[in-house]
Amino acid sequence: MLKSHLGVNEDNELTIGGVSTVELADRFGTPVYVTDENKIRENYHRFYEAFDKKWDDFAIWYAYKANSNLAVCKVLQDEGCGAEVGSLCELKIALKVGTPGEQIIFNGNNKSEKELELCIKNKVLINVDNLQELEIINRIAEEIGENARVGFRVNPDVEAPTHPHISTGLRKSKFGLDVPSGKAIKAYKKASKMDNITVEGIHSHIGSQILDPEPFMEQARKTLELRKKIRKEIGIELKIVDLGGGLGIPYRPGEKELPPEEFASKIVSTVEESLKDQELSKPKLVFEPGRFIIADTTLLLGRVGYVKERKNIPHWVSIDAGMNALIRPALYDSYHHIEVANKMNEEKTESTNVAGPLCESGDYLGKDRKLPPVERGDLLAIYDVGAYGLSMASQYVGNTRPCMVMVKSGKADTVRERETCEDLTRLDKFPDWLK
Amino acid sequence: MLKSHLGVNEDNELTIGGVSTVELADRFGTPVYVTDENKIRENYHRFYEAFDKKWDDFAIWYAYKANSNLAVCKVLQDEGCGAEVGSLCELKIALKVGTPGEQIIFNGNNKSEKELELCIKNKVLINVDNLQELEIINRIAEEIGENARVGFRVNPDVEAPTHPHISTGLRKSKFGLDVPSGKAIKAYKKASKMDNITVEGIHSHIGSQILDPEPFMEQARKTLELRKKIRKEIGIELKIVDLGGGLGIPYRPGEKELPPEEFASKIVSTVEESLKDQELSKPKLVFEPGRFIIADTTLLLGRVGYVKERKNIPHWVSIDAGMNALIRPALYDSYHHIEVANKMNEEKTESTNVAGPLCESGDYLGKDRKLPPVERGDLLAIYDVGAYGLSMASQYVGNTRPCMVMVKSGKADTVRERETCEDLTRLDKFPDWLK
Ligand SMILES: Cc1ncc(COP(=O)(O)O)c(C=O)c1O
Ligand SMILES: Cc1ncc(COP(=O)(O)O)c(C=O)c1O
Repeated sequence: MLKSHLGVNEDNELTIGGVSTVELADRFGTPVYVTDENKIRENYHRFYEAFDKKWDDFAIWYAYKANSNLAVCKVLQDEGCGAEVGSLCELKIALKVGTPGEQIIFNGNNKSEKELELCIKNKVLINVDNLQELEIINRIAEEIGENARVGFRVNPDVEAPTHPHISTGLRKSKFGLDVPSGKAIKAYKKASKMDNITVEGIHSHIGSQILDPEPFMEQARKTLELRKKIRKEIGIELKIVDLGGGLGIPYRPGEKELPPEEFASKIVSTVEESLKDQELSKPKLVFEPGRFIIADTTLLLGRVGYVKERKNIPHWVSIDAGMNALIRPALYDSYHHIEVANKMNEEKTESTNVAGPLCESGDYLGKDRKLPPVERGDLLAIYDVGAYGLSMASQYVGNTRPCMVMVKSGKADTVRERETCEDLTRLDKFPDWLK
Repeated sequence: MLKSHLGVNEDNELTIGGVSTVELADRFGTPVYVTDENKIRENYHRFYEAFDKKWDDFAIWYAYKANSNLAVCKVLQDEGCGAEVGSLCELKIALKVGTPGEQIIFNGNNKSEKELELCIKNKVLINVDNLQELEIINRIAEEIGENARVGFRVNPDVEAPTHPHISTGLRKSKFGLDVPSGKAIKAYKKASKMDNITVEGIHSHIGSQILDPEPFMEQARKTLELRKKIRKEIGIELKIVDLGGGLGIPYRPGEKELPPEEFASKIVSTVEESLKDQELSKPKLVFEPGRFIIADTTLLLGRVGYVKERKNIPHWVSIDAGMNALIRPALYDSYHHIEVANKMNEEKTESTNVAGPLCESGDYLGKDRKLPPVERGDLLAIYDVGAYGLSMASQYVGNTRPCMVMVKSGKADTVRERETCEDLTRLDKFPDWLK
């Protein structure tokens, strides 16, 4: 079953946003990322409505690290979505597309003074990672003469069933303040006494690509408990409970989604349950989804260069999109569904490996996939690459990064130009003694 | 024991090329890659001399994928080193720094027609990956009216003891023509009858970061056997035997190197042994080292932002250089030695994890290292990052890529400028309906 933005036309070509992928590849060249604007809006609405029905005060702050293309960020800002950013440049992009500072949250375990300064000046909420950072924020805020809005990243010690690289809520993790040892409470106590600090929230993020509601519920429960303890011991009532991102998507055919409706109702009932015996007001719930909003809006199209038939083992098909364009299979052993975009109705008879063009064995897009017989010139579509695709791309082996095209109801336009060879050496120069 | 280009000055600061790393960090900012020019030349000479003493006709073609910074490539070209390239842009860089086309080799499993055309026009040796590619080369050569110089990438089915991503010589690999099944011989037969093809060589590459001579010897033996078979069955004597790259370096303290002298003597004696019963002339031996030439010439310097002390588990120290600058620890679980560059003589008492600034658990540079007590403002030096460092860097989480500085006998100059936030969105634009 194809998703709402995808289709197959009468020539058996895969379409996205009503446009043939074959036409897109001809017009814009390959490799190319293609993102459907309406699907971004649809995903955002679905997440939004799931909570809107159940909770009064909440906000969605899109995680820019998933995909910070200007047009993508603009579309989400246009919907009223906030921004979760983790670097100076991401913060600048959020401001550039018109996001109000109050709807931006800055996360990170190694924030620079320059980043903190820009946050404070724009009334961006800073999720403080450690006590040393808190002192620096207080000092900078004083220098600027503004109050800094802060929350703390706490480490709820929740095990997330996902790839270890993106499981972030364990005690041994580099992130946040430890809860059981009392470090988190100590930090709130300290912050509450600081002159230039306004304590507004509490933040945790347990990991990414999670399809099981349990760890999210445990996270919510532990965070609300801590909020209560802070009220009891320090006397401040935190307005903002930021539960981070992490809602996964089904990448494999047949994999079950965790519907945002179920995600929302389980979180909301956990929060309500926790509030029952507390004399605390309802918090504003904040979410920082990246993957759920953007992953499935986007295809990566690559042209087949060569086909190597092998006996008894999968054939090799190589395309012009490789691990420099999409590192997820090499880095996380991620699965991305693959189709032959110009042969959508042909029978899938061949066991096939799909390789990129780079001189490295890790450079593959998929292994042992059932595809129709593939020939030079065919077009492959790699699915669900909107999140952590282009944002992690490199120029490895001298490959330029792909361009990105946005489609919308039959229209298509470039939202990121293809790099050229000149772009690769634009910043290179000879040392003065070698000129 | 420090390598020849590294030292410690009277202020207990790590030096490279006679320059204090603390001064370099102050002058150029952090994170910064620092490469010693003389060390590049020294590594090249060592590899060169190892063979020069034992074999008449050989060539070294540096693997650009390891690091294709213009200044690095220029230094090697200046030494007479050739270039192993794998993309249009790498080929253009090799030509730009003045490498003669005859000293360039083009490898890859998915070469585009544009790449092949530029190769043929410049008399670049093309290592053909498959028969389909051969026919395209012959056609393009005919159109241009020039002969194409080719070798074939063959797959010797040698198991290399390294990370699976960079083990490339197994039969199931995406690279090259299978030898046992007779595909390789068939390809040579076909090529020898083509009008616009000059068959010059045979190529294999079994993997990267190999410190055991055995697989290289097996590779040489199998390649020479195939060369003999080609002579016997087809009547052509291949001049060039290209054994690829792969010579590793010791990354861990105490790890044993495979000295290039031993590497050379074992390969040369294997080749001589194989030639004994053959009535074939001595081939020209070609090597494509990347890592050996450039890895240990370079440090990555990162400034400490925050220190988190933990009880019973390693402390966390975070610096401004992360997985976007150096993805090897996350991607290959690679070990890079780390020192506190401004505290070189202090006792290493603390078990420490070193994190980058990115919101991802995979963003670390090293785990559980013994370091002196670390404070905010300290400078960490990550060792041996010249190969597959900057060449694989990304802008993940909106981080700009580091600048690169070259040092030489006390001098220092930028060879790659630091990116700015503007560089991240320079190619982004809004679709015409969203302006
Ligand atoms: C703090 C934080 N928030 C949000 C996200 C977004 O996660 P996801 O894309 O899984 O929703 C991440 C991802 O790493 C994160 O680290
Ligand atoms: C064909 C080829 N040659 C040379 C190299 C360089 O290898 P190394 O850096 O291990 O010497 C590689 C690396 O992947 C390669 O694929």
